[in-house]
Amino acid sequence: MAYQPPVRDHVFLLEDVLKIDQYAELPSFADASLDVVKAIIEEAGKFTGEVLAPLNSVGDKQGCTWHPDNTVTTPAGFKEAYRQLCEGGWTGLGSDPTYGGQGLPHVVNLSFSEMSSSANMAFSMYPGLAHGAYSAIHTGGTDEQKQTYLPKMVTGEWTGTMNLTEPHCGTDLGLLRTKAVPQADGTYRITGQKIWISAGEHDMADNIIHLVLARIEGAPAGVKGISLFIVPKYFPTADGGVGARNEGAKCAGLEEKMGIHGNATCVMAYDDAVGYLIGEENAGLRIMFVMMNEARIGVGLQGVAQAEAAYQAAAEFAKDRLQGRSLTGPKNADGPADPIIVHPDVRRMLLDSKAIIEAGRAFLFWTALQGDLAHGHPDEAVRQKGNDYMGLLTPVLKGYLTDKGFKVCVDAMQVHGGSGFTEHFPASQYLRDCRIALIYEGTNGVQALDLVGRKLAANGGRAVMSFFAEIDAYVEAHGSDAQMKPFTDGLAGVKAQLQEATMWLMQNGLANPDNAGAASTDYMHLFGITGLAFMWAQIAEACIARAKAGDADPFYANKLVVGRYFVERIIPEGTSHLAKLKTGSATLMQLPAEAF
Amino acid sequence: MAYQPPVRDHVFLLEDVLKIDQYAELPSFADASLDVVKAIIEEAGKFTGEVLAPLNSVGDKQGCTWHPDNTVTTPAGFKEAYRQLCEGGWTGLGSDPTYGGQGLPHVVNLSFSEMSSSANMAFSMYPGLAHGAYSAIHTGGTDEQKQTYLPKMVTGEWTGTMNLTEPHCGTDLGLLRTKAVPQADGTYRITGQKIWISAGEHDMADNIIHLVLARIEGAPAGVKGISLFIVPKYFPTADGGVGARNEGAKCAGLEEKMGIHGNATCVMAYDDAVGYLIGEENAGLRIMFVMMNEARIGVGLQGVAQAEAAYQAAAEFAKDRLQGRSLTGPKNADGPADPIIVHPDVRRMLLDSKAIIEAGRAFLFWTALQGDLAHGHPDEAVRQKGNDYMGLLTPVLKGYLTDKGFKVCVDAMQVHGGSGFTEHFPASQYLRDCRIALIYEGTNGVQALDLVGRKLAANGGRAVMSFFAEIDAYVEAHGSDAQMKPFTDGLAGVKAQLQEATMWLMQNGLANPDNAGAASTDYMHLFGITGLAFMWAQIAEACIARAKAGDADPFYANKLVVGRYFVERIIPEGTSHLAKLKTGSATLMQLPAEAF
Repeated sequence: MAYQPPVRDHVFLLEDVLKIDQYAELPSFADASLDVVKAIIEEAGKFTGEVLAPLNSVGDKQGCTWHPDNTVTTPAGFKEAYRQLCEGGWTGLGSDPTYGGQGLPHVVNLSFSEMSSSANMAFSMYPGLAHGAYSAIHTGGTDEQKQTYLPKMVTGEWTGTMNLTEPHCGTDLGLLRTKAVPQADGTYRITGQKIWISAGEHDMADNIIHLVLARIEGAPAGVKGISLFIVPKYFPTADGGVGARNEGAKCAGLEEKMGIHGNATCVMAYDDAVGYLIGEENAGLRIMFVMMNEARIGVGLQGVAQAEAAYQAAAEFAKDRLQGRSLTGPKNADGPADPIIVHPDVRRMLLDSKAIIEAGRAFLFWTALQGDLAHGHPDEAVRQKGNDYMGLLTPVLKGYLTDKGFKVCVDAMQVHGGSGFTEHFPASQYLRDCRIALIYEGTNGVQALDLVGRKLAANGGRAVMSFFAEIDAYVEAHGSDAQMKPFTDGLAGVKAQLQEATMWLMQNGLANPDNAGAASTDYMHLFGITGLAFMWAQIAEACIARAKAGDADPFYANKLVVGRYFVERIIPEGTSHLAKLKTGSATLMQLPAEAF
Repeated sequence: MAYQPPVRDHVFLLEDVLKIDQYAELPSFADASLDVVKAIIEEAGKFTGEVLAPLNSVGDKQGCTWHPDNTVTTPAGFKEAYRQLCEGGWTGLGSDPTYGGQGLPHVVNLSFSEMSSSANMAFSMYPGLAHGAYSAIHTGGTDEQKQTYLPKMVTGEWTGTMNLTEPHCGTDLGLLRTKAVPQADGTYRITGQKIWISAGEHDMADNIIHLVLARIEGAPAGVKGISLFIVPKYFPTADGGVGARNEGAKCAGLEEKMGIHGNATCVMAYDDAVGYLIGEENAGLRIMFVMMNEARIGVGLQGVAQAEAAYQAAAEFAKDRLQGRSLTGPKNADGPADPIIVHPDVRRMLLDSKAIIEAGRAFLFWTALQGDLAHGHPDEAVRQKGNDYMGLLTPVLKGYLTDKGFKVCVDAMQVHGGSGFTEHFPASQYLRDCRIALIYEGTNGVQALDLVGRKLAANGGRAVMSFFAEIDAYVEAHGSDAQMKPFTDGLAGVKAQLQEATMWLMQNGLANPDNAGAASTDYMHLFGITGLAFMWAQIAEACIARAKAGDADPFYANKLVVGRYFVERIIPEGTSHLAKLKTGSATLMQLPAEAF
């Protein structure tokens, strides 16, 4: 059975956990009543399940093909699916209505994005990158630039890319060498090589709008001398069509990689390509980080999305595969053996997965909603908190959820046994595709460092203190309910560990930054566990409320079991993260480099 | 830089930690003085590094090719490398001198096997499987069978295979259907399909000796009706050559899989193939388990071997790649950036890896030495303990070391950043190749169940009690030494947790076997950590002894740093494993199958 979009889980989150109907007065929710949102999610499930999912394996096996004329052909079926994506209006779901978008809340867009990524991660990256480029132009572009590019990007007729990495520089953008030479007409000529450019060239859209980081001749060294340019593949014409080819912007080849074969990962050669400055000179990174932060949440989502698809395949296999007998006596006595789901250790892997996926999704949606509140809520305090949370939690969502999402994919293969290692089953592709999510848009180590080095301390620690206070208030409000107690106790316990770790960082990270670096990944994981514990408490609350209201659907009771599993079997990981991070950096830094 | 065989680490283990010169009086060590062993390891390093390693990527990219005449071609260079392997006598290193082997200790053979697997896992599986088949015939064959097959397998002229899995049955061999029909001449005719047969067909040897599990017509159902057969590809002739083709034994195709592309993973179609019973009727599993146990230790070794090679690539990359600056100020001020090894979080991944690899290797060698003692020691008590340990620790070595070896490969890719995801760097292959080690020869979940369900309780728990007593005595003997104290304290702490977990299992696993199953993987990991903590203590002891003897080589001081890292950053994982496993099976088993 192929991937089944988890429509009901999405609706449950929006309706019961996030209760989005309470935000009807916000602009982005004005046209997004619960009924409308439900209908959209239903349709998203159909489109992603029926159109995108069947192409996932095709994309993996065929990959993309580069031609000597610098064009790239996408796998069979991708072009037609992309046409349907555009026709369905999916590319503009969350985009600004001024440019033809539907202006729906971020959280609704996220629901579609998750299903799209589960169904076909490589495919979904084409519109994903385009949306990032859209956001950068929307944030930093002039009115003319917005009018020129955004409507076409909203319809999906044009896609976009992010060009950061060069062969000698990835994380450290200060080293980048691509140069921009100002021309008399106000344009620039861009020359340099960019690598790992997802969706850099393909055959699905009429035009590709490259956003390219480059250094204007004479600019300061390092990150203070980096500007951002729009480098279209074809020059836009006055009537909104495409004109001449920007000859200097070419795809010089494709990268051979472990996964996401259906996405064209391009080497882009810029040779005197025409570019248009976006935003101020030397201030390109600021705009690029608009894309980057959006992309990071999107990557966290990919972690959950691949995990969901891989989990589904594993659960299906575990219910079908007959092998051995239950340790407590046959459960399928008439059959030759029991389905392997009778085995506690198989269930351990599946429940680990389910407990991460369901709360990971909730954490993503919950944070995205904070983004919606940050943009549109009338109360300044709510907007500020929304912004604070988006900043604080973005690295946690990206780092923790991709680390754990990958673990789910590894476990999903394990549930399959030998079958999982063969390419006849989907487990290998999910594992291989998911692996990139731990790396791109800033490796997970970079996320962890962003969290401890930048986000924690921002505004005097306001964001994290607000997060702790919100959890405290939640525990206070619900901890006396007997049904809620296991969840609030678990939450309070791991939150106390996170707070202890935060104190440790304040005391030791400032004195010696290596202590912060040494603690960063364990801290990020401890934060992730705490976030998911908070989500499980809220999910439990919603399920208990349904039951109290007389809804006997086992959907709710089953969620409570998964939540208890999280409390029993995942929260204990917090203890070892805390113990590890408190050992500091001395031993880590002691070994001389040549001894590695 | 390609894989560098860690010759010095191997020699250090054998000389300083295991002190193999104390066993000179044992038969297998008679011709294995320390000097001889050192020379062998040096040569092993050269052969594997110079001949096998350069073919690793070739094997991955080319894979094997199946032809319609049922033959299989191995990747370019494999055949010639195999010729050199045989000429060098490497195939018979640990084999019985009666059949032309060199009769060296298991532990020496393991040293070669690790390097061979690091250099080229897919290649090393051909002689690896052959050695497993050798062992089965050596254990269960008649004198005539031994004389017919073993000399050719020792020289490597003939290879061998293990045929267990069928499409509907892997772990649960009781379901197997391949049938054997007795013939008037005492032979059998074998019919059935076997899948995932590593090295099932290839072009490197003159003959392939398949060991095939099948059910003799009329045999009891389940595992009590399974017999083992020798099914040669070509019939041996009286003069030791190969005669007619055994027409009914054919490779029907190759499996497409995520990794180990250089190894031919075959679908074997047996259609009235001639087979010779080995051992008693219906007692085939017992002999197969001789191969299986040997293979399981070999797979644990593959985990460490892939980890070593992946770690080396990552460490090299981390020392070369200039990106960003140290958190405590530039360390390469004259360069454009610092090498990324200055970052604590990069070091965390590399030290996690090193701490696992070095003690994992020690644990493998230490256990292999127990096997050598079990076979040749004059003292019955030592032999019994050796046998007990081999039984108890085999699932731990297989399960824990492949889980952790795979983690090392995942981290090695992470250290590479985006480069790691491309196929230009070796990280992807190591990760993909290593992944199978968690699955084959019994998934790691099966290992964990073997440990808690069978091995712990065997002989009234004699093996585990003896292991605990040995650790207690070690801590007692060394705990008062100030330099040893961090290591013995760490060891004593995690051993106490393992003992508590063992008690919990005794109290709860018997009452409800699902509790044992639910605890099994966490228990196996806790056992693995304890084993490695014991190894680190012994490695530290050896390093401290060298220093006390005036040897100022930083090799020893650096090992102590890595050992302290293990104590600080890996031992704390024991706490969460213990907490998790003590939660039992209730929540795990509560979710109905349809809710997954």
